[in-house]
Amino acid sequence: MMSHGGDRYRNKVRLDFSVNTNPAGVLESVRQSLINSISKAEHYPDQEASALRKDLAEALQVREDMLLFGNGASEILTAAVRAAKPKNVLLPVPSFSGYQWALRPEAPKIRYVEMEDDFQITQKLIGELTEEMDMLFLTNPNNPTGRYIRHDLLEEILDICREKKILVILDECFMELSDDPEHNTCVPQISRWQNLIILRAFTKSFAIPGVRLGYMICADTALNEKIRQMLPEWNLSVMAQDAGVAALKEIGTLKEARAQIIKDRTYLKEQLEEAGLQCTPSNAGFLLLKSPREDLYEKLLEKEILIRDCSDYQGLSKGYYRVAVRPKEENEELIRAVRDVIKEK
Amino acid sequence: MMSHGGDRYRNKVRLDFSVNTNPAGVLESVRQSLINSISKAEHYPDQEASALRKDLAEALQVREDMLLFGNGASEILTAAVRAAKPKNVLLPVPSFSGYQWALRPEAPKIRYVEMEDDFQITQKLIGELTEEMDMLFLTNPNNPTGRYIRHDLLEEILDICREKKILVILDECFMELSDDPEHNTCVPQISRWQNLIILRAFTKSFAIPGVRLGYMICADTALNEKIRQMLPEWNLSVMAQDAGVAALKEIGTLKEARAQIIKDRTYLKEQLEEAGLQCTPSNAGFLLLKSPREDLYEKLLEKEILIRDCSDYQGLSKGYYRVAVRPKEENEELIRAVRDVIKEK
Repeated sequence: MMSHGGDRYRNKVRLDFSVNTNPAGVLESVRQSLINSISKAEHYPDQEASALRKDLAEALQVREDMLLFGNGASEILTAAVRAAKPKNVLLPVPSFSGYQWALRPEAPKIRYVEMEDDFQITQKLIGELTEEMDMLFLTNPNNPTGRYIRHDLLEEILDICREKKILVILDECFMELSDDPEHNTCVPQISRWQNLIILRAFTKSFAIPGVRLGYMICADTALNEKIRQMLPEWNLSVMAQDAGVAALKEIGTLKEARAQIIKDRTYLKEQLEEAGLQCTPSNAGFLLLKSPREDLYEKLLEKEILIRDCSDYQGLSKGYYRVAVRPKEENEELIRAVRDVIKEK
Repeated sequence: MMSHGGDRYRNKVRLDFSVNTNPAGVLESVRQSLINSISKAEHYPDQEASALRKDLAEALQVREDMLLFGNGASEILTAAVRAAKPKNVLLPVPSFSGYQWALRPEAPKIRYVEMEDDFQITQKLIGELTEEMDMLFLTNPNNPTGRYIRHDLLEEILDICREKKILVILDECFMELSDDPEHNTCVPQISRWQNLIILRAFTKSFAIPGVRLGYMICADTALNEKIRQMLPEWNLSVMAQDAGVAALKEIGTLKEARAQIIKDRTYLKEQLEEAGLQCTPSNAGFLLLKSPREDLYEKLLEKEILIRDCSDYQGLSKGYYRVAVRPKEENEELIRAVRDVIKEK
């Protein structure tokens, strides 16, 4: 599949900074729910995901029929693109390579719009919202930069897209582990835009990427149903459904996780800058780095530390890397390792 | 999604005869591998499924690049249809409703061919293999009838389809729990037909439908890659991959499971016929029944016994039902319950 710049299955990895999941790891109650769910492996999963749907609708304060679950957010992306069949897609870059993966089968014309002023979405994007566009991807906060879109600008963009019938896929997969999500998420405003799909994942927030559980929220229930028709009949495992239910009971812990991430991110950024890297300001649980050495990935991998090489991202180049904010001791080890590499001849 | 005639999540079910999984249930070693895999929930799954791929290729004696894994066989179906974009599809009926679900997004013209002589594929199908057809679905053994296609006829059909460039999706999901699979499967002959996709699932053979793990085998590696492009980037959970590896170590147990199923099926069929039902001859771990009472499903559900109502299958009608062969005591209870219902006024 797409290159993700190396992975733990084909490299010896002791510390993994390449994935942006909750550094607190898998919660004990979620782990226990996974173990318990194994007794249900002999049954087909609930096609309606009724228990999970009910709890999530309540947690998000949305209607149950606005929700659609996927085997990871990536499955939702694939199905949404197939249902919408976009011809002209607007894609601010740099951004998650998975959008291009999902778009490939429909082969739309993609217009890449480079972000500006240290990778921000600005008024410039509004000029690109022409009638011929039918789909726009936004990531909030962005991946790999970690930056938020200013909320009033985001609202303006969504309003214009509604007028011009541009379907917006707003990826909020990192929102729950980022600064002040309450004032940045569009979930409470979902009914304002029928042209809006918000993507979310349990993967990141609850550190269970191995389980595969994502979802979308969309007020246009006809579109929701159309996307559902593109999904396999049983797409969520019994484990994913049970883990989701357990995770929602722990949603309060995300507040502490966020506070810790923000503290650790601030420190990590300072230290990496002091070591000689440039860091883009980030609202999320990860940092985009520019390194004076373009072999930082390889050098750290020699020390069994995996980071994300971002040189293959549209809009970036050699020397860009992304690192997750991990627990304190791991961050310290990364800082030391980076210092050593930068100092090396 | 599609109606499957009721399910355990929306009915009170004590005995479930509606799904055709291995009646021996989940093997202890597979259950243990699932539990162990939970420690990997915090990692993204291996996109290449390398360990599972290696073991399965060895077990089936095929090349690794002939294999493609799915989040259940249903995901493969969805992706294969999207990749092939068939315009004219030949579908012998009755057959699994999931094919129609998978076909819906591409909206091909579907030509339904009714099987004959108590639901068998016959020479009649060969007359339907015209140049304009581009896809044929076959299920061997068939679902819901449980009948095999005669192997020499199957080979003839596949040869003609190769000549006429008809892609055949041959669903062998029930093969491993059916009579004499060695002489009925096409897996050892896979390289003979580049126009052949064989579907398989761990779901049925190892009784883990809740885990979601299916695969396809195809000698046309370019087609394989094309279908892979339709799948989400991470489609297999870490649990599914580990369960698959563990299951392959137990492939020898399927022989005993088959022997038991055949014995129990013979008895169940005799007894149900004695109770007044007609049973189609079956090679698989389930039976297609015709009941003189058309409320058998509802009446058994009152006793908390779930069977499959087949009245909504193309080619069948009111009064047709499918039951799985379950462990002996469960079968006895079904027989008693059916007798009671048939005797009722």
